[in-house]
Amino acid sequence: MKPSIPKGTRDFSPTEVANRTYIINTIKTVFENFGFQPIETPSFENSSTLMGKYGEEGDRLIFKILNSGDYLEKADEQLLTTRNSNLLTSQISEKALRYDLTVPFARYVVQHQNDITFPFKRYQIQPVWRADRPQKGRFREFYQCDADVVGSDSLWQEVEFIQLYDTVFTKLGLQGTTIKINNRKILSGIAEVIGASDKLIDFTVALDKLDKIGKEGVETEMLSKGITKEAIEKAQPLFYFSGDNSQKLNALQGLLESSVEGKKGVDELRFIIENTQELGLQTANLEIDVTLARGLNYYTGAIFEVAAPKTVSMGSIGGGGRYDDLTGIFGLKDVSGVGISFGLDRIYLVLEELNLFQKVALPKPTVLFVNLGATEALYSLKAISLLRAKNIKAELYPEAAKMKKQFNYADKREIPFVVIVGSEEVQQQTYTVKNMVSGEQKMLNLSELFNAVENK
Amino acid sequence: MKPSIPKGTRDFSPTEVANRTYIINTIKTVFENFGFQPIETPSFENSSTLMGKYGEEGDRLIFKILNSGDYLEKADEQLLTTRNSNLLTSQISEKALRYDLTVPFARYVVQHQNDITFPFKRYQIQPVWRADRPQKGRFREFYQCDADVVGSDSLWQEVEFIQLYDTVFTKLGLQGTTIKINNRKILSGIAEVIGASDKLIDFTVALDKLDKIGKEGVETEMLSKGITKEAIEKAQPLFYFSGDNSQKLNALQGLLESSVEGKKGVDELRFIIENTQELGLQTANLEIDVTLARGLNYYTGAIFEVAAPKTVSMGSIGGGGRYDDLTGIFGLKDVSGVGISFGLDRIYLVLEELNLFQKVALPKPTVLFVNLGATEALYSLKAISLLRAKNIKAELYPEAAKMKKQFNYADKREIPFVVIVGSEEVQQQTYTVKNMVSGEQKMLNLSELFNAVENK
Repeated sequence: MKPSIPKGTRDFSPTEVANRTYIINTIKTVFENFGFQPIETPSFENSSTLMGKYGEEGDRLIFKILNSGDYLEKADEQLLTTRNSNLLTSQISEKALRYDLTVPFARYVVQHQNDITFPFKRYQIQPVWRADRPQKGRFREFYQCDADVVGSDSLWQEVEFIQLYDTVFTKLGLQGTTIKINNRKILSGIAEVIGASDKLIDFTVALDKLDKIGKEGVETEMLSKGITKEAIEKAQPLFYFSGDNSQKLNALQGLLESSVEGKKGVDELRFIIENTQELGLQTANLEIDVTLARGLNYYTGAIFEVAAPKTVSMGSIGGGGRYDDLTGIFGLKDVSGVGISFGLDRIYLVLEELNLFQKVALPKPTVLFVNLGATEALYSLKAISLLRAKNIKAELYPEAAKMKKQFNYADKREIPFVVIVGSEEVQQQTYTVKNMVSGEQKMLNLSELFNAVENK
Repeated sequence: MKPSIPKGTRDFSPTEVANRTYIINTIKTVFENFGFQPIETPSFENSSTLMGKYGEEGDRLIFKILNSGDYLEKADEQLLTTRNSNLLTSQISEKALRYDLTVPFARYVVQHQNDITFPFKRYQIQPVWRADRPQKGRFREFYQCDADVVGSDSLWQEVEFIQLYDTVFTKLGLQGTTIKINNRKILSGIAEVIGASDKLIDFTVALDKLDKIGKEGVETEMLSKGITKEAIEKAQPLFYFSGDNSQKLNALQGLLESSVEGKKGVDELRFIIENTQELGLQTANLEIDVTLARGLNYYTGAIFEVAAPKTVSMGSIGGGGRYDDLTGIFGLKDVSGVGISFGLDRIYLVLEELNLFQKVALPKPTVLFVNLGATEALYSLKAISLLRAKNIKAELYPEAAKMKKQFNYADKREIPFVVIVGSEEVQQQTYTVKNMVSGEQKMLNLSELFNAVENK
């Protein structure tokens, strides 16, 4: 039987690990330069911590861990005989795999509130698991890279997060990303102004699809959800929303004149946009998108989403927003937070498509010493130790195999230097070094060897 | 209800993450300098990949993941009514959490054999999960850091692994570790010579306990397992085994004169010991320990175990050995492998106890800009961007809170420099920089600010 791995999971080869590590380290360095500190939480949480936090759909997609030992011992008789999978779950499973990093973070903040200095700027880069149907860019095990600030409602955080996105994508060589921004208060204001406040969620969910299903599709969906024709008529400007950010801000200001909340949203958005403009962005574009809702009901202020450069077809590669009461679910009220997330796996696919991994150093030796026998191997290992002490990656071919086989190995692993040590070299205390790219071959002493292979 | 996490799991604070990352990066750098390449495998595997590979006890300790959806639908009626937890498991759970890194590695090698260049030197640093009873240094989620070579039976690998252990522990500042070494062929040879070949496992398991239960305890256990008095009599030299490595080698040579396999074990051990001696070790001791068996039946040659310095009471902090047929369980026969593992969590506890984390840089900003209002904040953020571009960790206090509160924050996070920007500084294009350690305060221009905080 051929071995395999579960659907939606992946093995990562050395090259893939190196490329992923490159992205992660880039994000990490920027997070730390922006003052964020790392935390880690367990891969599994008590089910009670996770269940009910992501909606019904989320609950279904959470991976549950079977209790150890005789898990059926105390299970309810009737649930067993009626095969009630749904209700039996909580009796035979007490733990579940992390579904995102936000809920565990909220749990962490509440649990460790006495040890935390607020405002708390934390980042977290760990895998999460979802029993979703796998497809391009969607996996059952994938990484999230989150940064959040809790304990401050200053809009400077939003300004900083836009800078942060711009810095990371610029460092990755990914030019021309678009950071879309909206504000939940603007969505509420619009719903209020058009007389559809009671249908806010349906309204935003439908509006969010404008890109995909077009104006008519959105109108049809709104009607089907009971939003009136008059309301949809009043919402028309949104369907033709255009111009640069300041034109959009002015249009929104006019449209939301009569809504206190809506006007507050416009003020917030204006603060963020104008200060970002003052500070400047390196390679990203910042764009108001009034259709942006991200389907997540816990956002209360800014909403972010990052689109890859237009030449690449890929869903969003990042997103986030502000939530006024994240830790409330665990009993700590009125702690405002704002955060963003990077989608590692999608960023990987985008960088791959744009051929942006070229400069990543692969984890391979710089120098291979061929093995011609015990005396030569021991002599070689002494030099290898010294090379390694200078952080030069070096290895000895393990066996005194045929020369051709050893050179094949060096070729396949693309090792740039091969050192040949025979009895002559041992006697003269030298090393014959072959540059595998140029083909050049020289007999060198130890310090010449260092110089030849250093920084290569 | 106060939130909590499952028994045997841990949250890691920023300081703990920094310390763990320091250990991991040290190990990683050495692995790569020795020519090893990273791979990663999924957190969960098909149950069939894991079950039956770790013995009965292991099977029980593997965390199983409940199938998604209506998992009871096709479950066997009788197993449900008789509450047969044991047999039901495979019907309601198809996946299980990784229990170690060795079996997934074997699976990886077989699955990807056509893409791999042999000898394949891989390392892997990932968490594993065991439903074990938690205690000091034992967790339900913990990290393993493994390096293995497959596809070569050269003893130079064993020599290199000893160098590798020595290099890592030296870099971590952990002086005086003891690398214990034995050879499975020597254990077989002894069993053969004393006439207990059929009781090899019982014999080695009992001998392995000499440290803990003493000579009499071991003899009693051997007798109870059916090992004869005569055999135990012949094994006496092992109980009083002493001297330096070359004395031990000579004693073993004498003892195992009549066993072909035993003599092969002595030869292997001699090769490893003598070459290691030639190369030298920086801070570790290498010690033959004939009682070392590590209870693992798949070792076929060298067996390693690393003990912390004698001043610290802690179980082994690393171990490994050679196995002649690791990938055989997945259908790829006769591929020899040898590997070692570092126990991250125990190494952490040892370094903590010995106060060896002092030099680890904590993830905190170097510079905090106090926030005195919108104009000053924007002016500050421009400087902050430039600092970050030079990889200097800097942040703006998010709100224009009271000065005292902002300085308290800087104190608590031990931020070494605070920059105060008021209207005067904005006008003069300067920055008032306070050194939080010396208390010194100066008004500087931008390039003076860079110089003041760089490399601090």
